[in-house]
Amino acid sequence: MSLDMEQRRAAGTVAYRYQGLIDEVRRQIDSGALRPGDALPSVRAMRQRARVSAGTVLHAYRALEAQGIIESRPRSGFYVVSGRALKAPAYRYQSLSAARDVDAAGLIRTVLSSTAEQATVQFGSAAPAAELLPLSKLQRLSNRTVRQASQTAHLVTEPQGHGRLRQGIARHMTTAGCAVNPEDVVVTNGCTEALMLALRAVTRPGDTVAIESPVYYGIPLILESLDLKVLELPTSPETGVDLQAVEEITRQGSAQALLIGANHHNPLGFVMPDRAKKALVDLLSAKQIPLIEDDIYGDLTHAQSARPRPLKAFDTAGTVLYCSSFSKTLSPAYRVGWIASSRYFETILKLKMASSLANNGPAQLTLGEFLNAGQFLTHLRLLQHRAGVAVQRTLNAIDREWPAAVRVNRPIGGILLWIELPNRIDAQALHRRALALGISIAPGALFSDQLRFTHYFRLNCAQPWNDVTHNAIKKLGKLIDA
Amino acid sequence: MSLDMEQRRAAGTVAYRYQGLIDEVRRQIDSGALRPGDALPSVRAMRQRARVSAGTVLHAYRALEAQGIIESRPRSGFYVVSGRALKAPAYRYQSLSAARDVDAAGLIRTVLSSTAEQATVQFGSAAPAAELLPLSKLQRLSNRTVRQASQTAHLVTEPQGHGRLRQGIARHMTTAGCAVNPEDVVVTNGCTEALMLALRAVTRPGDTVAIESPVYYGIPLILESLDLKVLELPTSPETGVDLQAVEEITRQGSAQALLIGANHHNPLGFVMPDRAKKALVDLLSAKQIPLIEDDIYGDLTHAQSARPRPLKAFDTAGTVLYCSSFSKTLSPAYRVGWIASSRYFETILKLKMASSLANNGPAQLTLGEFLNAGQFLTHLRLLQHRAGVAVQRTLNAIDREWPAAVRVNRPIGGILLWIELPNRIDAQALHRRALALGISIAPGALFSDQLRFTHYFRLNCAQPWNDVTHNAIKKLGKLIDA
Repeated sequence: MSLDMEQRRAAGTVAYRYQGLIDEVRRQIDSGALRPGDALPSVRAMRQRARVSAGTVLHAYRALEAQGIIESRPRSGFYVVSGRALKAPAYRYQSLSAARDVDAAGLIRTVLSSTAEQATVQFGSAAPAAELLPLSKLQRLSNRTVRQASQTAHLVTEPQGHGRLRQGIARHMTTAGCAVNPEDVVVTNGCTEALMLALRAVTRPGDTVAIESPVYYGIPLILESLDLKVLELPTSPETGVDLQAVEEITRQGSAQALLIGANHHNPLGFVMPDRAKKALVDLLSAKQIPLIEDDIYGDLTHAQSARPRPLKAFDTAGTVLYCSSFSKTLSPAYRVGWIASSRYFETILKLKMASSLANNGPAQLTLGEFLNAGQFLTHLRLLQHRAGVAVQRTLNAIDREWPAAVRVNRPIGGILLWIELPNRIDAQALHRRALALGISIAPGALFSDQLRFTHYFRLNCAQPWNDVTHNAIKKLGKLIDA
Repeated sequence: MSLDMEQRRAAGTVAYRYQGLIDEVRRQIDSGALRPGDALPSVRAMRQRARVSAGTVLHAYRALEAQGIIESRPRSGFYVVSGRALKAPAYRYQSLSAARDVDAAGLIRTVLSSTAEQATVQFGSAAPAAELLPLSKLQRLSNRTVRQASQTAHLVTEPQGHGRLRQGIARHMTTAGCAVNPEDVVVTNGCTEALMLALRAVTRPGDTVAIESPVYYGIPLILESLDLKVLELPTSPETGVDLQAVEEITRQGSAQALLIGANHHNPLGFVMPDRAKKALVDLLSAKQIPLIEDDIYGDLTHAQSARPRPLKAFDTAGTVLYCSSFSKTLSPAYRVGWIASSRYFETILKLKMASSLANNGPAQLTLGEFLNAGQFLTHLRLLQHRAGVAVQRTLNAIDREWPAAVRVNRPIGGILLWIELPNRIDAQALHRRALALGISIAPGALFSDQLRFTHYFRLNCAQPWNDVTHNAIKKLGKLIDA
């Protein structure tokens, strides 16, 4: 630690005291120099190494503890909290999937309906908690902008979406590494409509679409509704979709399109390495196979990491149809998402007109203002920090409360954990028992057509952190143990 | 006139003075007892017949004049304003339509985009003017309800839609003559998504759907996007779809579904007689052919008529999938519509999940409150009156300003006029020339796959009534004349 610290102190480039100390410890943990369970330097040792007061060190350690990054053990000192490493799933690449064996629609409705019941602990949803979202700010902005532009809000039904919002979206994508023209953006009813329109733009009924396995449960539902066949690709929890498998299917011509999430994947949590992203885009561009990118979690990088680049950032041939939304960053129920694609723009716009004509006006007006007033990036920094804290404190609680045989991933972004139960435990049975106690989870069977993930489930960490939530973790632990 | 008046005065059931006089004259006009161009009784004669003061008669006549129902001619008295009667189109029933000859998507985009330009006179749109909508009321209600239920507004993403809104919708449909269960209602992104989901629920790609001709231009666009074939049915401007043609195609089995608008049809303006509605529903029920009903203008009956019953009111077998929205009555850009169908409910809900997951939360919350607070019916009465006035004053202006060879219908509901130009005048050329003057119209070619209506256009009467609008009517008259 000390060399880097010394250099930076000497260079005088960082106000190195309280916040600098926090950043340094987090960086060490992220880089693996400090690992789960490791002891931190004692306050005394750290005081001398960092040349700050003991009070500053203790202040910083307490802040890290409040963030759930480290924990104090009485008469022993501070330790990095541990999360269990998830082993890669053992399944191998399989060919075309057969008919669906799970009533995904029914399961999904149970999970989503439970979000409407205030009494339930929402581990099963994928929505951020209200605490993570700028709801009052949005509301004040909405009241003001809609009052000032009432006719624009209520009467303008442009299929492509409000120009000001599209400009804000394009500017935001540029900061994420994609130079996108506002004229190539179509505003959609959330990411679901974006994915649906993208699929309809590049496939015909009966075509085959290759997707990750496991995958967000909404995607097979969309594919099924469009009479598209599903090819599940083996997907690593660390690096994403298996490129050899992709190469094989492009060589065979066995899929007419791919639908991939490269950043903070739902449910696996990985970020594809940039080299893999580039290789994937190049591979598909060479074969002229469209790549639909679901980047809905891309902005939810935890505070210490840079926002990973979308696949679209590596696209020079127009291969990637970029899909995202504000459902994870601003308001899930606003239902504002978008597609960016120059090559398929005309087709997408025509399909949008025939699908839902246009998007809600007040929401577009409000978000257009929010983005253009520069409030989005300020909010994102806070959100990213809070998402990191939420994931870490949940990992800590799981570590304390759940049987050691449970395995959990350690995502560097997003709000979701992917949890592996011992083989004999059926996650759907766990889901039913948990629901009876007022706790929802998302059972693994939702995430594949193949019943591969019956002993997995997904857990949403973005919850109000209180006794109810903490007790829910305890109760789940007991159900798993039983 | 006098017998009915006398009876009612004697019975003492009506406060018969100023308002009673207005109602009576309007009823006489609606019934045809007073016809366009007819002189009204002189003030003196009416004073004696109705046994009211001369001031009351004059007051009532002036009010009717302000509504555009009658007009005063200097030194001559008051006359019923005249609108020209539209003759039924001369085309005959044709078989399956061939490929589309018009770039409808491009034309539609031109028409819709022009709605975003504030400078343009919006005769081409089908949206009600801001003056007809309770925008400030909605906004105040939205500010309050969203503030009070911020989490519900922003976090609840139920595919079926908010329960409270569905209850309000079901109650409203009951007042329109359909007993509908809130559990059978799915909230959609406007009527477009409703129609799209209904079509997907009852057809497969390659199927044929029978529709009216002319028909709202969005409908062929939806059908085309779903790879559905179109069968255009001959449609009377007075009574709607030709039942003999329907009987013929049901006998032949040449359509897998029908999509029909029975009330204040866009663009023709007719209301199907109840007997024809019942016959249509019975015919399709007997053959188990699904009937998708587009009732988006159903609530826009002008003040003097009862709200016509939907086809769904005649449905005892579950044949009708009822589609509508609040785009014509509350806010076009809210994008809140719905489908009501018990039989196809599960399929529709699954398709909704795969199409756009859920609807905008703040809009649902606000409309749920608006409907349940009883404000909707109060607003509708005002809207219906204003729509009637808007149509009548436009008819008056056309009568004064346009060449006599132009023919116009006289709808008893809605805000649209269907206008027939002399044969040699191409409405698309007129559209282009008018647009250059800042005036949009909807050329007839949009309303059929068959280029049957090239010398027709649709005109939206719901405009702010001022010099600009009036001049636009004059300019159109000159363009037609030239």
